[in-house]
Amino acid sequence: MKNYFKLKSIYKKISKFKNIEAIMHWDQATMMPSGSSEARAEDMAELSLHIHQLSKNPIIPELIDLAYNEISTSEEQSCLNEIKRSWSNSNILTDDLVQAKALAGAKCEHAWRTQREENDWISFSQNFKTVVELSQEEAQIRAEALQTTPYNAMLNLYEPGMSTNELDNIFNNIKCWLPNLINQVQQKQQNEPYIKPEGTFPIKQQKEMGLKVMKTLGFDFNSGRLDISLHPFCGGTSQDIRITTRYDENDFIQSLMGIIHETGHARYEQGLPQKYRGLPAGQARSMGIHESQSLFFEMQIGRSSEFISYLAPLAQNIFKQNKQKIFTKDNLKKIYTRVQPDYIRVDADEVTYPAHIILRYEIEKDLMNKKVSYKDIPEIWDLKMKKYLNLSTKGNYKNGCMQDIHWTDGSFGYFPSYTLGAMYAAQFMATIKNQIDVNECLSQKNLAPIFKWLSKNIWEKGSLLETNDVIMQATNESLNPQYFKEHLESRYL
Amino acid sequence: MKNYFKLKSIYKKISKFKNIEAIMHWDQATMMPSGSSEARAEDMAELSLHIHQLSKNPIIPELIDLAYNEISTSEEQSCLNEIKRSWSNSNILTDDLVQAKALAGAKCEHAWRTQREENDWISFSQNFKTVVELSQEEAQIRAEALQTTPYNAMLNLYEPGMSTNELDNIFNNIKCWLPNLINQVQQKQQNEPYIKPEGTFPIKQQKEMGLKVMKTLGFDFNSGRLDISLHPFCGGTSQDIRITTRYDENDFIQSLMGIIHETGHARYEQGLPQKYRGLPAGQARSMGIHESQSLFFEMQIGRSSEFISYLAPLAQNIFKQNKQKIFTKDNLKKIYTRVQPDYIRVDADEVTYPAHIILRYEIEKDLMNKKVSYKDIPEIWDLKMKKYLNLSTKGNYKNGCMQDIHWTDGSFGYFPSYTLGAMYAAQFMATIKNQIDVNECLSQKNLAPIFKWLSKNIWEKGSLLETNDVIMQATNESLNPQYFKEHLESRYL
Repeated sequence: MKNYFKLKSIYKKISKFKNIEAIMHWDQATMMPSGSSEARAEDMAELSLHIHQLSKNPIIPELIDLAYNEISTSEEQSCLNEIKRSWSNSNILTDDLVQAKALAGAKCEHAWRTQREENDWISFSQNFKTVVELSQEEAQIRAEALQTTPYNAMLNLYEPGMSTNELDNIFNNIKCWLPNLINQVQQKQQNEPYIKPEGTFPIKQQKEMGLKVMKTLGFDFNSGRLDISLHPFCGGTSQDIRITTRYDENDFIQSLMGIIHETGHARYEQGLPQKYRGLPAGQARSMGIHESQSLFFEMQIGRSSEFISYLAPLAQNIFKQNKQKIFTKDNLKKIYTRVQPDYIRVDADEVTYPAHIILRYEIEKDLMNKKVSYKDIPEIWDLKMKKYLNLSTKGNYKNGCMQDIHWTDGSFGYFPSYTLGAMYAAQFMATIKNQIDVNECLSQKNLAPIFKWLSKNIWEKGSLLETNDVIMQATNESLNPQYFKEHLESRYL
Repeated sequence: MKNYFKLKSIYKKISKFKNIEAIMHWDQATMMPSGSSEARAEDMAELSLHIHQLSKNPIIPELIDLAYNEISTSEEQSCLNEIKRSWSNSNILTDDLVQAKALAGAKCEHAWRTQREENDWISFSQNFKTVVELSQEEAQIRAEALQTTPYNAMLNLYEPGMSTNELDNIFNNIKCWLPNLINQVQQKQQNEPYIKPEGTFPIKQQKEMGLKVMKTLGFDFNSGRLDISLHPFCGGTSQDIRITTRYDENDFIQSLMGIIHETGHARYEQGLPQKYRGLPAGQARSMGIHESQSLFFEMQIGRSSEFISYLAPLAQNIFKQNKQKIFTKDNLKKIYTRVQPDYIRVDADEVTYPAHIILRYEIEKDLMNKKVSYKDIPEIWDLKMKKYLNLSTKGNYKNGCMQDIHWTDGSFGYFPSYTLGAMYAAQFMATIKNQIDVNECLSQKNLAPIFKWLSKNIWEKGSLLETNDVIMQATNESLNPQYFKEHLESRYL
């Protein structure tokens, strides 16, 4: 086992520097004074280079080959497979291509921040062209190594094991029923007026509410924190998980549900298998599974009638100075389940959200597979938005194809994770409901049995199983979009 | 200049990892949840090992030799000298000795935290014995390399260029007049009653006050922060300086003056020469000079009548709910200039403080030079405390020789920096007063001319000059304890 142990110790060392990088990133987003950003960028580049060098250690592939002859258990096999995957993903590209893409991405993203505000597709597309070309080159190289299509290869970076064929099937299924469902829900909700949050909701009180809810959701404050950042995220390390939110004094809706969402990410990280800490096998399985946990917390638990019944009196008690009618169970439920087709993905409700994802998936797939040009994106976007959500984005780049950050740095293949996560979450909840009286748990504010199920079936698995095996072992079948459909129908119709 | 540039790039790289280490240390002391401390310690050990390996790069001494033939200006010469000093300091000891001392120090310090509370000298001295022996070994090795005495060699780690001979002269001078001065001040202050702070001073208001004072003192919040930690410190990097304080709701005195003190450290760091960022020559000159800046802010500015005239109405305004008589100019001045011989160094006033330092200096000098044994410390401590401050510490280890953290990890040679700093600060202020109407500046709250002087004469010099040259160029003479004496006499008699 000499080589296997040596390999593990190399990866554990790399993970320590990655932990440091994660805390430094958190610091950058939450604590760092703005005047230090340039010096900090230099420090972080040095750290990132060091991690890159450690990850490229030429001894690693030799050790991997030798280690395969040493191991015996299936866990060791998984451990080694994940090391091999990690090694391949980070070594298949030349340093030149990695650097060129990083530079082009940083340039495009930076300019995008103002170009988006100015609705300036022409200027944006000049930077974006390079990002697309370099990403296509990357996709081609990865595709050849994996013997698959370019887009499949990119998809595998975020959702290993998932394929375009499977996604096409799933998304075509969703496309069959989603437009009609959206219509029905909208018609139903037309006759259901509600009171919108108005007035001031002091940040101190919002934070108090957020912390209480995190506690109820089992967040371990001995190994984590809640802070403020411009863009909410879940960062830090699995031993020291740090979630952030953004408060709007005029609205408590977003920050509260955002905290619940990030708490889902956090509990997954806090629940990863200790035994494999520092190894690829001990990390989160995929972006889709990660999102399944945040959406389980937000959509399956957070927006359920039972959980809103818990939130309502809590809010009434904390926001004492506000109009109490806002916080009735019925009104809160209406607020948190409102469906409204709109332009912006990040503000979308859970019913219209898949339409945003399918649109992006179809475009980025064709883009990576060189079926369309980056120039065609605005037109395709407009056509698909009309088709899926009955909205035109003609000339409206800002709220159309320029709204997301993902493509600006070449993260093609990421978007499907969101809807995969929503579907996994619905499937998990359907299974749990067969085993546990979930409504009773939620009504009694006794969430432990639900978390125990998640811990045993998802969190503790780390990356020891392939995604499909996680789903199979947990739910006795592969990913099945029917559960997601049933979830939406039962909540919204 | 090929080798010179290569050398500089090696040191700039090291400094980037040291910056990361500094922010991570700050995080550990201010933000990190306690449950992460074990995992964090592992991450930090890995980072520290990496910095150590970079610093030991065997190419460095070759490059130094070659670079001396390439350089031409005096600044390049200084730059290279400081690199050489840094290299020698960190490479003269074997890795085994460094590790043994680090381990023994960590063990001794950790146990000390409870042993001190329990007044348990016997148990403490068992760990301490090893720390002393390893430090003596270190001092011996450094002494041979520098052709000097063991204690001189240790002193040079913190105050390069300072010698036992010079310190003996200075401290013997102070010993001639200090006991008498303390007596006189005490007799004078007996007839000057004052109102002690009583009641609650909410942390929020103390922080508000602290931030206002930092602003007045020119702290650059665009490149720094104020936070809370158990032990106040000034950390972070020169681009991102982070000071901390500790608030006591029953007393605003300590935290306020602590903030002023740390602001002095911070402004020195913020004012270091940009041109030499990341190089040893761009760092703070010495511990004594660092302390001179914090004490300049605290003692020369902060406790002056003029500055207290500014603090008094500010405090009256902020602590509105408190008894306003506490905050009269006269009362605040009495609070902030009270002299009282006592056991604990960190709580000592500026008049009795040097006695604490001289006592420690005399003991640690004899200890490193093997004139006394660690076993003799309690007895010597008691004798000297009686002699200098008329207090007995017999059997009182807790408030005697076990009170400080410095010796527990073998930082012998550090203590003189405190009193050197106080003397430098007094000498700087005496010089400034010859050039600028300081009282007018302080009364008008126009501190810019004072900071401009400090920046030009101290901060911008970094480590480009030897300490004695800094003092000479700034004040036209070498360190002269007479200024410190005059400062104390003029303020306290």
